[in-house]
Amino acid sequence: MNEKITEFRDYRAKMNEKILAANNKVMKRIYNIDTNTYMEGALSTKVKEMMGLVSSMVLRCDDCVKYHLEKCHEQGVTTEELFEIFAVANLVGGTIVIPHTRRAVEYWEALQEEVLNPSGV
Amino acid sequence: MNEKITEFRDYRAKMNEKILAANNKVMKRIYNIDTNTYMEGALSTKVKEMMGLVSSMVLRCDDCVKYHLEKCHEQGVTTEELFEIFAVANLVGGTIVIPHTRRAVEYWEALQEEVLNPSGV
Amino acid sequence: MNEKITEFRDYRAKMNEKILAANNKVMKRIYNIDTNTYMEGALSTKVKEMMGLVSSMVLRCDDCVKYHLEKCHEQGVTTEELFEIFAVANLVGGTIVIPHTRRAVEYWEALQEEVLNPSGV
Amino acid sequence: MNEKITEFRDYRAKMNEKILAANNKVMKRIYNIDTNTYMEGALSTKVKEMMGLVSSMVLRCDDCVKYHLEKCHEQGVTTEELFEIFAVANLVGGTIVIPHTRRAVEYWEALQEEVLNPSGV
Amino acid sequence: MNEKITEFRDYRAKMNEKILAANNKVMKRIYNIDTNTYMEGALSTKVKEMMGLVSSMVLRCDDCVKYHLEKCHEQGVTTEELFEIFAVANLVGGTIVIPHTRRAVEYWEALQEEVLNPSGV
Amino acid sequence: MNEKITEFRDYRAKMNEKILAANNKVMKRIYNIDTNTYMEGALSTKVKEMMGLVSSMVLRCDDCVKYHLEKCHEQGVTTEELFEIFAVANLVGGTIVIPHTRRAVEYWEALQEEVLNPSGV
Repeated sequence: MNEKITEFRDYRAKMNEKILAANNKVMKRIYNIDTNTYMEGALSTKVKEMMGLVSSMVLRCDDCVKYHLEKCHEQGVTTEELFEIFAVANLVGGTIVIPHTRRAVEYWEALQEEVLNPSGV
Repeated sequence: MNEKITEFRDYRAKMNEKILAANNKVMKRIYNIDTNTYMEGALSTKVKEMMGLVSSMVLRCDDCVKYHLEKCHEQGVTTEELFEIFAVANLVGGTIVIPHTRRAVEYWEALQEEVLNPSGV
Repeated sequence: MNEKITEFRDYRAKMNEKILAANNKVMKRIYNIDTNTYMEGALSTKVKEMMGLVSSMVLRCDDCVKYHLEKCHEQGVTTEELFEIFAVANLVGGTIVIPHTRRAVEYWEALQEEVLNPSGV
Repeated sequence: MNEKITEFRDYRAKMNEKILAANNKVMKRIYNIDTNTYMEGALSTKVKEMMGLVSSMVLRCDDCVKYHLEKCHEQGVTTEELFEIFAVANLVGGTIVIPHTRRAVEYWEALQEEVLNPSGV
Repeated sequence: MNEKITEFRDYRAKMNEKILAANNKVMKRIYNIDTNTYMEGALSTKVKEMMGLVSSMVLRCDDCVKYHLEKCHEQGVTTEELFEIFAVANLVGGTIVIPHTRRAVEYWEALQEEVLNPSGV
Repeated sequence: MNEKITEFRDYRAKMNEKILAANNKVMKRIYNIDTNTYMEGALSTKVKEMMGLVSSMVLRCDDCVKYHLEKCHEQGVTTEELFEIFAVANLVGGTIVIPHTRRAVEYWEALQEEVLNPSGV
């Protein structure tokens, strides 16, 4: 598997575990709501994940972008659709979003390769 | 018609006209792209407008929120769907988004009344 | 009572009620956590409210500033302490915070007058 | 004189006075540095004020925009130059800057009228 | 000593020196005020550093977070208190703050280990 | 040539190519406007690039800062002028801009060395 992907996932999982282990009630609830927000509802999970992605881009958080790219990928978002999300983010958020778009494209390619070659051989 | 709506639309139209009349090529092109971004494509205009709304909320721009609320309303977004957009925005962007959500709810109500009573009598 | 105070409180209460009435589970939980976060814990409510205020200032949300000013006032924050919070906010957040500081000072004065003259006569 | 201008200036002056009267050393120094930053140096005051304006626009602070518009006006910035500043701000900062541009254009017009008709008759 | 800590401190010290050596009066004064802001006053240094930390988190600046984590650690902030600061930051600033919280937890652990094993052997 | 410079330029060029190859009309136009915005006009390219730099600093985007540092360097901005841009950015944007200033100084030094020793030997 692509090193960028495993590195992101492992660090994320390890540190989230530590945050939850600290047993702060508010932090635990925020994590909990986070899961609920993107569930199927009046809007589909796919649409919600696309909204999570566009929000992460205009707020310029690379890790949040990676996370929502993974979720969008799971939800079957196509590369053409992805670039329309990028278009909204770069228009509304400005060219300041471009460097994050570059890194998003790189991560998206890694996610696509992972599907074609899951064992990473 | 609701005063809040007409006030917003009139000021917006009047000032946009002045901006375009200044004849700055870059500004004119930005306005032009803005129209193109939300056109039907791989993603529907409805989904794009919802992404425009969520971006405006996390970036906390009341006028942009109003504009995209109008567009979402035109696209048939339901109140239940709207609150799921608010949920993503308030989760990702934090409670700092709540005051903008309050004003968004007020504007949404005005848009709904406008449909029921277009002449504002 | 000062008109600025009642206007803020009434609008806030009215719109919060509408948001909760919409019955979106995520929004309701966010409101719920909000209450919990500032409760006495390892840190006092006073310290947490001061942190809520400084966060609202650097993120430049006037309504959030007003809300936390009210809470700080209830917690017995003195004017001298308040200006030390403003100092941190203006240093870390930059002079872009100054206009919000001006409005915060105005609201703080209204809160102080309210104590001296609660009936607003 | 235009009401928007006097209202802005009066409120700003009155509240700044109160902030300085509170005698917080850090706040006073920040105000002091603010004056120094825009003085003639390796770069002219005009260029620095244009940079103050573009920063205020991308950070989306209407009062800061007004302040730097006044200073740019004093420094002889032309309307054509102004729109090139707006172009940079709207490109880098995104369409989220447009509503602030609308209000900036309105204030700029007021500043221009003030010159033509200083007594406001 | 933990490599992450020394790397951060060394780079910070080296570059701050260069910035001050450039002899720009405004930059030097900003550095100077920075020291003054967190001194004991009406509020304790501990409370001010906690406010510096929460501001850095909602503004999402990892290096600023590291710096204030060091100061909070020096001031005897406990891990339980720290998570209550994180709670305020993640509530007010939203889940966009989570990745910064993950990195903050990692740095906090390094600071704690440093105390137990100062020579880093 | 300095490794930091080549790494930045190569990654930037490679990923921009991929973004443009995706053939999204909006993204292509945004790239196109980007070029136009900084052309000589009522304001010089030098002044516009300085405004691009100060905007990137207050919005705290390291890659955008690097890009505009390169352009400012090409336009003959002196180190003394550069620090006056930093002064505006750190004053308006706050101490949260300091870590980005540290990295900007490092990149500026690399750009200066590149001129003295273009082959990097």
